[in-house]
Amino acid sequence: MATELQALTQALRDFAQARDWEPFHSPKNLATALSVEAAELLEHFQWLTEAQSRALPEDKRAEIGTEIADVLLYLLQLADKLGIDPVEAAKRKMIANAVKYPAPPPA
Amino acid sequence: MATELQALTQALRDFAQARDWEPFHSPKNLATALSVEAAELLEHFQWLTEAQSRALPEDKRAEIGTEIADVLLYLLQLADKLGIDPVEAAKRKMIANAVKYPAPPPA
Amino acid sequence: MATELQALTQALRDFAQARDWEPFHSPKNLATALSVEAAELLEHFQWLTEAQSRALPEDKRAEIGTEIADVLLYLLQLADKLGIDPVEAAKRKMIANAVKYPAPPPA
Amino acid sequence: MATELQALTQALRDFAQARDWEPFHSPKNLATALSVEAAELLEHFQWLTEAQSRALPEDKRAEIGTEIADVLLYLLQLADKLGIDPVEAAKRKMIANAVKYPAPPPA
Repeated sequence: MATELQALTQALRDFAQARDWEPFHSPKNLATALSVEAAELLEHFQWLTEAQSRALPEDKRAEIGTEIADVLLYLLQLADKLGIDPVEAAKRKMIANAVKYPAPPPA
Repeated sequence: MATELQALTQALRDFAQARDWEPFHSPKNLATALSVEAAELLEHFQWLTEAQSRALPEDKRAEIGTEIADVLLYLLQLADKLGIDPVEAAKRKMIANAVKYPAPPPA
Repeated sequence: MATELQALTQALRDFAQARDWEPFHSPKNLATALSVEAAELLEHFQWLTEAQSRALPEDKRAEIGTEIADVLLYLLQLADKLGIDPVEAAKRKMIANAVKYPAPPPA
Repeated sequence: MATELQALTQALRDFAQARDWEPFHSPKNLATALSVEAAELLEHFQWLTEAQSRALPEDKRAEIGTEIADVLLYLLQLADKLGIDPVEAAKRKMIANAVKYPAPPPA
Protein backbone atom coordinates (compact mmCIF):
# COMPACT_ATOMS: atom_id res chain seq x y z
CA MET A 1 0.00 0.00 0.00
CA ALA A 2 1.15 3.54 -0.65
CA THR A 3 3.14 5.02 2.21
CA GLU A 4 0.64 7.84 2.46
CA LEU A 5 -2.27 5.47 3.11
CA GLN A 6 -0.16 3.51 5.59
CA ALA A 7 0.47 6.72 7.52
CA LEU A 8 -3.24 7.55 7.46
CA THR A 9 -4.10 4.05 8.65
CA GLN A 10 -1.64 4.34 11.54
CA ALA A 11 -3.08 7.74 12.47
CA LEU A 12 -6.59 6.20 12.53
CA ARG A 13 -5.36 3.43 14.83
CA ASP A 14 -3.83 5.94 17.23
CA PHE A 15 -6.95 8.10 17.09
CA ALA A 16 -9.29 5.24 18.01
CA GLN A 17 -6.95 3.95 20.70
CA ALA A 18 -6.61 7.36 22.39
CA ARG A 19 -10.42 7.52 22.64
CA ASP A 20 -10.97 3.89 23.72
CA TRP A 21 -13.09 3.30 20.60
CA GLU A 22 -11.53 -0.09 19.89
CA PRO A 23 -14.43 -2.06 21.46
CA PHE A 24 -16.86 -0.34 19.06
CA HIS A 25 -14.71 -0.95 16.01
CA SER A 26 -15.62 -4.51 15.19
CA PRO A 27 -15.46 -5.20 11.44
CA LYS A 28 -19.26 -5.57 11.51
CA ASN A 29 -19.68 -2.09 12.97
CA LEU A 30 -17.09 -0.51 10.69
CA ALA A 31 -18.78 -2.03 7.63
CA THR A 32 -22.06 -0.57 8.89
CA ALA A 33 -20.53 2.88 9.40
CA LEU A 34 -18.98 2.70 5.93
CA SER A 35 -22.35 1.93 4.36
CA VAL A 36 -24.05 4.72 6.33
CA GLU A 37 -21.40 7.22 5.17
CA ALA A 38 -21.75 6.06 1.56
CA ALA A 39 -25.49 6.79 1.84
CA GLU A 40 -24.79 10.25 3.27
CA LEU A 41 -22.62 10.87 0.24
CA LEU A 42 -25.38 9.62 -2.04
CA GLU A 43 -27.95 11.84 -0.31
CA HIS A 44 -26.30 14.90 -1.87
CA PHE A 45 -27.18 13.55 -5.31
CA GLN A 46 -30.65 12.12 -4.74
CA TRP A 47 -32.74 14.92 -6.26
CA LEU A 48 -30.17 16.13 -8.79
CA THR A 49 -30.27 15.22 -12.44
CA GLU A 50 -27.20 13.48 -13.80
CA ALA A 51 -26.36 16.69 -15.68
CA GLN A 52 -26.53 18.72 -12.46
CA SER A 53 -24.28 16.18 -10.76
CA ARG A 54 -21.67 16.85 -13.44
CA ALA A 55 -21.72 20.59 -12.71
CA LEU A 56 -21.85 20.99 -8.95
CA PRO A 57 -21.50 24.41 -7.34
CA GLU A 58 -18.31 24.80 -5.33
CA ASP A 59 -19.93 24.69 -1.87
CA LYS A 60 -21.70 21.42 -2.71
CA ARG A 61 -18.48 19.98 -4.08
CA ALA A 62 -16.73 20.81 -0.79
CA GLU A 63 -19.45 19.10 1.25
CA ILE A 64 -19.20 16.04 -0.93
CA GLY A 65 -15.43 16.02 -0.45
CA THR A 66 -16.02 15.68 3.27
CA GLU A 67 -18.32 12.69 2.71
CA ILE A 68 -15.75 11.08 0.41
CA ALA A 69 -13.25 11.52 3.23
CA ASP A 70 -15.57 9.77 5.70
CA VAL A 71 -16.03 6.82 3.36
CA LEU A 72 -12.27 6.49 2.82
CA LEU A 73 -11.53 6.73 6.55
CA TYR A 74 -13.92 3.89 7.41
CA LEU A 75 -12.71 1.85 4.46
CA LEU A 76 -9.11 2.14 5.69
CA GLN A 77 -10.11 1.20 9.23
CA LEU A 78 -12.13 -1.83 8.10
CA ALA A 79 -9.35 -3.02 5.80
CA ASP A 80 -6.80 -2.55 8.59
CA LYS A 81 -8.86 -4.64 11.04
CA LEU A 82 -9.10 -7.42 8.49
CA GLY A 83 -5.46 -7.27 7.44
CA ILE A 84 -6.44 -6.41 3.87
CA ASP A 85 -4.42 -4.04 1.68
CA PRO A 86 -7.18 -2.11 -0.14
CA VAL A 87 -4.93 -0.89 -2.95
CA GLU A 88 -3.61 -4.36 -3.71
CA ALA A 89 -7.20 -5.66 -3.59
CA ALA A 90 -8.26 -2.90 -6.00
CA LYS A 91 -5.46 -3.78 -8.43
CA ARG A 92 -6.47 -7.44 -8.38
CA LYS A 93 -10.10 -6.49 -8.94
CA MET A 94 -9.19 -4.32 -11.93
CA ILE A 95 -7.45 -7.29 -13.53
CA ALA A 96 -10.52 -9.44 -12.87
CA ASN A 97 -12.72 -6.73 -14.39
CA ALA A 98 -10.54 -6.55 -17.49
CA VAL A 99 -11.11 -10.28 -18.01
CA LYS A 100 -14.84 -10.02 -17.27
CA TYR A 101 -15.46 -7.01 -19.50
CA PRO A 102 -13.04 -7.22 -22.44
CA ALA A 103 -12.52 -3.95 -24.25
CA PRO A 104 -14.02 -3.86 -27.73
CA PRO A 105 -11.48 -3.73 -30.57
CA PRO A 106 -10.67 -0.22 -31.83
CA ALA A 107 -13.04 0.84 -34.63
CA MET B 1 -2.44 11.92 -3.62
CA ALA B 2 -0.13 8.98 -3.44
CA THR B 3 1.40 8.07 -6.80
CA GLU B 4 -0.08 4.60 -6.50
CA LEU B 5 -3.63 5.92 -6.26
CA GLN B 6 -2.99 8.33 -9.12
CA ALA B 7 -1.92 5.41 -11.27
CA LEU B 8 -5.02 3.46 -10.27
CA THR B 9 -7.22 6.47 -11.05
CA GLN B 10 -5.64 6.83 -14.49
CA ALA B 11 -6.14 3.11 -15.15
CA LEU B 12 -9.83 3.47 -14.23
CA ARG B 13 -10.19 6.39 -16.65
CA ASP B 14 -8.63 4.38 -19.46
CA PHE B 15 -10.76 1.36 -18.60
CA ALA B 16 -14.03 3.31 -18.76
CA GLN B 17 -13.01 5.15 -21.92
CA ALA B 18 -12.07 1.95 -23.78
CA ARG B 19 -15.55 0.59 -23.05
CA ASP B 20 -17.49 3.80 -23.76
CA TRP B 21 -18.77 3.84 -20.18
CA GLU B 22 -18.23 7.58 -19.75
CA PRO B 23 -21.90 8.47 -20.42
CA PHE B 24 -22.97 6.19 -17.56
CA HIS B 25 -20.39 7.56 -15.14
CA SER B 26 -22.12 10.72 -13.96
CA PRO B 27 -21.20 11.58 -10.36
CA LYS B 28 -24.80 10.74 -9.41
CA ASN B 29 -24.48 7.24 -10.86
CA LEU B 30 -21.01 6.66 -9.40
CA ALA B 31 -22.24 7.71 -5.94
CA THR B 32 -25.11 5.23 -6.36
CA ALA B 33 -22.77 2.43 -7.40
CA LEU B 34 -20.49 3.22 -4.45
CA SER B 35 -23.39 2.96 -2.04
CA VAL B 36 -24.58 -0.30 -3.59
CA GLU B 37 -21.09 -1.79 -3.29
CA ALA B 38 -20.81 -0.65 0.34
CA ALA B 39 -24.07 -2.51 1.03
CA GLU B 40 -22.73 -5.64 -0.69
CA LEU B 41 -19.75 -5.42 1.63
CA LEU B 42 -22.07 -5.01 4.61
CA GLU B 43 -24.17 -7.99 3.52
CA HIS B 44 -21.30 -10.31 4.46
CA PHE B 45 -21.62 -9.17 8.08
CA GLN B 46 -25.38 -8.93 8.49
CA TRP B 47 -26.01 -12.18 10.39
CA LEU B 48 -22.61 -12.41 12.09
CA THR B 49 -22.05 -11.41 15.68
CA GLU B 50 -19.43 -8.74 16.25
CA ALA B 51 -17.16 -11.43 17.71
CA GLN B 52 -17.54 -13.54 14.57
CA SER B 53 -16.73 -10.51 12.44
CA ARG B 54 -13.43 -10.22 14.31
CA ALA B 55 -12.50 -13.82 13.46
CA LEU B 56 -13.48 -14.39 9.85
CA PRO B 57 -12.52 -17.59 8.06
CA GLU B 58 -10.02 -17.04 5.28
CA ASP B 59 -12.44 -17.60 2.39
CA LYS B 60 -14.85 -15.02 3.79
CA ARG B 61 -11.99 -12.58 4.33
CA ALA B 62 -11.01 -12.97 0.66
CA GLU B 63 -14.58 -12.30 -0.52
CA ILE B 64 -14.73 -9.20 1.65
CA GLY B 65 -11.41 -8.04 0.19
CA THR B 66 -13.04 -8.05 -3.23
CA GLU B 67 -15.93 -5.92 -1.96
CA ILE B 68 -13.48 -3.49 -0.35
CA ALA B 69 -11.80 -3.23 -3.74
CA ASP B 70 -15.12 -2.42 -5.43
CA VAL B 71 -15.83 0.35 -2.94
CA LEU B 72 -12.37 1.85 -3.40
CA LEU B 73 -12.60 1.69 -7.19
CA TYR B 74 -15.89 3.60 -7.27
CA LEU B 75 -14.65 6.05 -4.66
CA LEU B 76 -11.62 6.84 -6.80
CA GLN B 77 -13.75 7.27 -9.90
CA LEU B 78 -16.23 9.56 -8.16
CA ALA B 79 -13.47 11.66 -6.62
CA ASP B 80 -11.73 11.89 -9.99
CA LYS B 81 -14.91 13.12 -11.73
CA LEU B 82 -15.33 15.81 -9.08
CA GLY B 83 -11.67 16.85 -9.04
CA ILE B 84 -11.36 15.86 -5.37
CA ASP B 85 -8.19 14.34 -3.91
CA PRO B 86 -9.63 11.73 -1.53
CA VAL B 87 -6.46 11.38 0.54
CA GLU B 88 -6.13 15.13 1.08
CA ALA B 89 -9.85 15.24 1.97
CA ALA B 90 -9.33 12.38 4.46
CA LYS B 91 -6.40 14.19 6.10
CA ARG B 92 -8.47 17.36 6.47
CA LYS B 93 -11.35 15.35 7.94
CA MET B 94 -9.04 13.71 10.48
CA ILE B 95 -7.98 17.13 11.69
CA ALA B 96 -11.61 18.20 11.98
CA ASN B 97 -12.38 14.99 13.89
CA ALA B 98 -9.53 15.65 16.31
CA VAL B 99 -11.09 19.02 17.12
CA LYS B 100 -14.61 17.57 17.35
CA TYR B 101 -13.64 14.61 19.54
CA PRO B 102 -10.74 15.70 21.76
CA ALA B 103 -8.77 12.82 23.22
CA PRO B 104 -9.20 12.42 26.98
CA PRO B 105 -6.12 13.21 29.03
CA PRO B 106 -4.00 10.17 29.90
CA ALA B 107 -5.10 8.60 33.20
CA MET C 1 -53.52 -3.80 -0.87
CA ALA C 2 -55.00 -2.86 2.46
CA THR C 3 -57.39 0.09 2.26
CA GLU C 4 -55.25 1.94 4.80
CA LEU C 5 -52.15 1.74 2.60
CA GLN C 6 -54.16 2.75 -0.45
CA ALA C 7 -55.32 5.86 1.39
CA LEU C 8 -51.74 6.63 2.41
CA THR C 9 -50.56 6.14 -1.17
CA GLN C 10 -53.23 8.52 -2.45
CA ALA C 11 -52.28 11.11 0.17
CA LEU C 12 -48.64 10.86 -0.95
CA ARG C 13 -49.67 11.43 -4.57
CA ASP C 14 -51.66 14.51 -3.61
CA PHE C 15 -48.82 15.78 -1.43
CA ALA C 16 -46.24 15.53 -4.21
CA GLN C 17 -48.58 17.01 -6.79
CA ALA C 18 -49.44 20.04 -4.64
CA ARG C 19 -45.72 20.79 -4.35
CA ASP C 20 -44.82 20.10 -7.99
CA TRP C 21 -42.44 17.35 -6.88
CA GLU C 22 -43.51 14.95 -9.61
CA PRO C 23 -40.52 15.75 -11.88
CA PHE C 24 -38.14 14.75 -9.07
CA HIS C 25 -39.98 11.53 -8.29
CA SER C 26 -38.60 9.26 -10.97
CA PRO C 27 -38.41 5.63 -9.80
CA LYS C 28 -34.62 5.98 -9.89
CA ASN C 29 -34.72 8.93 -7.49
CA LEU C 30 -37.32 7.35 -5.22
CA ALA C 31 -35.24 4.17 -4.98
CA THR C 32 -32.25 6.35 -4.05
CA ALA C 33 -34.20 8.21 -1.39
CA LEU C 34 -35.48 4.90 0.00
CA SER C 35 -31.95 3.58 0.31
CA VAL C 36 -30.74 6.81 1.94
CA GLU C 37 -33.56 6.65 4.49
CA ALA C 38 -32.82 2.99 5.23
CA ALA C 39 -29.24 4.01 6.00
CA GLU C 40 -30.43 6.79 8.30
CA LEU C 41 -32.45 4.16 10.13
CA LEU C 42 -29.39 1.91 10.31
CA GLU C 43 -27.25 4.77 11.62
CA HIS C 44 -29.11 4.64 14.93
CA PHE C 45 -27.84 1.09 15.46
CA GLN C 46 -24.28 1.34 14.17
CA TRP C 47 -22.43 1.56 17.49
CA LEU C 48 -24.94 -0.39 19.59
CA THR C 49 -24.47 -4.01 20.53
CA GLU C 50 -27.21 -6.37 19.43
CA ALA C 51 -28.28 -6.63 23.08
CA GLN C 52 -28.59 -2.84 23.33
CA SER C 53 -30.63 -2.80 20.15
CA ARG C 54 -33.11 -5.14 21.83
CA ALA C 55 -33.55 -2.75 24.77
CA LEU C 56 -33.74 0.75 23.33
CA PRO C 57 -34.59 3.72 25.52
CA GLU C 58 -37.95 5.27 24.69
CA ASP C 59 -36.57 8.44 23.05
CA LYS C 60 -34.38 6.39 20.72
CA ARG C 61 -37.31 4.14 19.88
CA ALA C 62 -39.36 7.20 18.91
CA GLU C 63 -36.61 8.51 16.64
CA ILE C 64 -36.34 5.14 14.97
CA GLY C 65 -40.11 5.11 14.48
CA THR C 66 -39.76 8.29 12.43
CA GLU C 67 -37.08 6.68 10.26
CA ILE C 68 -39.27 3.60 9.76
CA ALA C 69 -42.00 5.97 8.61
CA ASP C 70 -39.67 7.60 6.07
CA VAL C 71 -38.71 4.23 4.63
CA LEU C 72 -42.35 3.16 4.34
CA LEU C 73 -43.38 6.45 2.72
CA TYR C 74 -40.73 6.16 -0.01
CA LEU C 75 -41.48 2.47 -0.48
CA LEU C 76 -45.15 3.26 -1.08
CA GLN C 77 -44.31 6.04 -3.53
CA LEU C 78 -41.88 3.89 -5.49
CA ALA C 79 -44.32 0.97 -5.62
CA ASP C 80 -47.08 3.33 -6.72
CA LYS C 81 -44.98 4.76 -9.57
CA LEU C 82 -44.23 1.25 -10.78
CA GLY C 83 -47.78 -0.05 -10.42
CA ILE C 84 -46.66 -2.65 -7.88
CA ASP C 85 -48.79 -3.69 -4.91
CA PRO C 86 -46.15 -4.05 -2.17
CA VAL C 87 -48.32 -6.21 0.10
CA GLU C 88 -49.16 -8.66 -2.67
CA ALA C 89 -45.47 -8.74 -3.62
CA ALA C 90 -44.57 -9.44 0.03
CA LYS C 91 -47.07 -12.30 0.22
CA ARG C 92 -45.64 -13.86 -2.93
CA LYS C 93 -42.12 -13.48 -1.58
CA MET C 94 -43.06 -15.20 1.68
CA ILE C 95 -44.32 -18.18 -0.28
CA ALA C 96 -41.07 -18.26 -2.26
CA ASN C 97 -39.10 -18.04 1.00
CA ALA C 98 -41.04 -20.96 2.47
CA VAL C 99 -40.00 -23.08 -0.51
CA LYS C 100 -36.39 -21.84 -0.38
CA TYR C 101 -35.98 -22.32 3.37
CA PRO C 102 -38.12 -25.30 4.41
CA ALA C 103 -38.93 -25.41 8.10
CA PRO C 104 -37.19 -28.23 9.97
CA PRO C 105 -39.49 -30.99 11.25
CA PRO C 106 -40.62 -30.52 14.88
CA ALA C 107 -38.18 -32.20 17.31
CA MET D 1 -52.26 -1.12 11.48
CA ALA D 2 -54.21 -2.63 8.64
CA THR D 3 -55.38 -6.16 9.33
CA GLU D 4 -53.53 -7.34 6.25
CA LEU D 5 -50.18 -6.10 7.55
CA GLN D 6 -50.91 -7.55 10.98
CA ALA D 7 -51.48 -10.94 9.38
CA LEU D 8 -48.24 -10.59 7.41
CA THR D 9 -46.36 -9.61 10.57
CA GLN D 10 -47.72 -12.65 12.41
CA ALA D 11 -46.75 -14.90 9.52
CA LEU D 12 -43.20 -13.48 9.64
CA ARG D 13 -43.02 -14.19 13.38
CA ASP D 14 -44.13 -17.79 12.85
CA PHE D 15 -41.72 -18.19 9.95
CA ALA D 16 -38.70 -17.02 11.96
CA GLN D 17 -39.71 -19.05 15.00
CA ALA D 18 -40.12 -22.29 13.03
CA ARG D 19 -36.56 -21.85 11.71
CA ASP D 20 -34.99 -20.76 15.02
CA TRP D 21 -33.96 -17.46 13.43
CA GLU D 22 -34.97 -15.40 16.47
CA PRO D 23 -31.39 -15.13 17.83
CA PHE D 24 -30.27 -13.56 14.53
CA HIS D 25 -33.16 -11.12 14.41
CA SER D 26 -31.90 -8.40 16.73
CA PRO D 27 -33.17 -4.95 15.71
CA LYS D 28 -29.58 -4.09 14.77
CA ASN D 29 -29.38 -7.03 12.37
CA LEU D 30 -32.85 -6.45 10.93
CA ALA D 31 -32.00 -2.78 10.28
CA THR D 32 -28.83 -3.95 8.52
CA ALA D 33 -30.74 -6.44 6.38
CA LEU D 34 -33.31 -3.77 5.52
CA SER D 35 -30.57 -1.42 4.34
CA VAL D 36 -28.90 -4.17 2.32
CA GLU D 37 -32.21 -5.01 0.61
CA ALA D 38 -32.86 -1.34 -0.13
CA ALA D 39 -29.46 -1.22 -1.87
CA GLU D 40 -30.30 -4.34 -3.88
CA LEU D 41 -33.45 -2.56 -5.00
CA LEU D 42 -31.41 0.52 -5.90
CA GLU D 43 -28.90 -1.58 -7.84
CA HIS D 44 -31.52 -2.19 -10.54
CA PHE D 45 -31.60 1.55 -11.22
CA GLN D 46 -27.92 2.49 -10.94
CA TRP D 47 -27.05 2.71 -14.64
CA LEU D 48 -30.51 3.69 -15.91
CA THR D 49 -31.45 7.22 -16.78
CA GLU D 50 -34.40 8.67 -14.92
CA ALA D 51 -36.42 8.42 -18.12
CA GLN D 52 -35.58 4.72 -18.44
CA SER D 53 -36.59 4.19 -14.82
CA ARG D 54 -40.04 5.56 -15.71
CA ALA D 55 -40.45 3.02 -18.52
CA LEU D 56 -39.16 -0.31 -17.23
CA PRO D 57 -39.61 -3.47 -19.26
CA GLU D 58 -41.96 -5.95 -17.63
CA ASP D 59 -39.29 -8.45 -16.57
CA LYS D 60 -37.31 -5.73 -14.80
CA ARG D 61 -40.46 -4.48 -13.12
CA ALA D 62 -41.13 -7.97 -11.78
CA GLU D 63 -37.60 -8.27 -10.37
CA ILE D 64 -37.97 -4.91 -8.68
CA GLY D 65 -41.29 -6.03 -7.21
CA THR D 66 -39.43 -8.85 -5.47
CA GLU D 67 -36.92 -6.40 -4.00
CA ILE D 68 -39.74 -4.14 -2.82
CA ALA D 69 -41.20 -7.20 -1.09
CA ASP D 70 -37.89 -7.90 0.67
CA VAL D 71 -37.68 -4.34 1.94
CA LEU D 72 -41.26 -4.44 3.24
CA LEU D 73 -40.74 -7.82 4.93
CA TYR D 74 -37.69 -6.60 6.87
CA LEU D 75 -39.40 -3.31 7.68
CA LEU D 76 -42.36 -5.18 9.18
CA GLN D 77 -40.08 -7.45 11.20
CA LEU D 78 -38.01 -4.57 12.53
CA ALA D 79 -41.11 -2.55 13.44
CA ASP D 80 -42.60 -5.62 15.13
CA LYS D 81 -39.49 -6.20 17.27
CA LEU D 82 -39.58 -2.57 18.39
CA GLY D 83 -43.32 -2.48 19.01
CA ILE D 84 -43.79 0.24 16.39
CA ASP D 85 -46.84 0.43 14.13
CA PRO D 86 -45.27 1.48 10.82
CA VAL D 87 -48.52 2.76 9.30
CA GLU D 88 -49.32 4.95 12.29
CA ALA D 89 -45.72 6.22 12.24
CA ALA D 90 -46.07 7.00 8.52
CA LYS D 91 -49.30 8.93 9.11
CA ARG D 92 -47.64 10.98 11.85
CA LYS D 93 -44.67 11.67 9.58
CA MET D 94 -46.93 12.86 6.77
CA ILE D 95 -48.49 15.39 9.13
CA ALA D 96 -45.02 16.57 10.17
CA ASN D 97 -44.02 16.84 6.51
CA ALA D 98 -47.11 18.93 5.73
CA VAL D 99 -46.00 21.39 8.40
CA LYS D 100 -42.37 21.35 7.28
CA TYR D 101 -43.13 21.77 3.57
CA PRO D 102 -46.30 23.88 3.26
CA ALA D 103 -48.05 23.59 -0.08
CA PRO D 104 -47.83 26.72 -2.20
CA PRO D 105 -51.14 28.55 -2.71
CA PRO D 106 -52.95 27.59 -5.92
CA ALA D 107 -51.88 29.84 -8.80
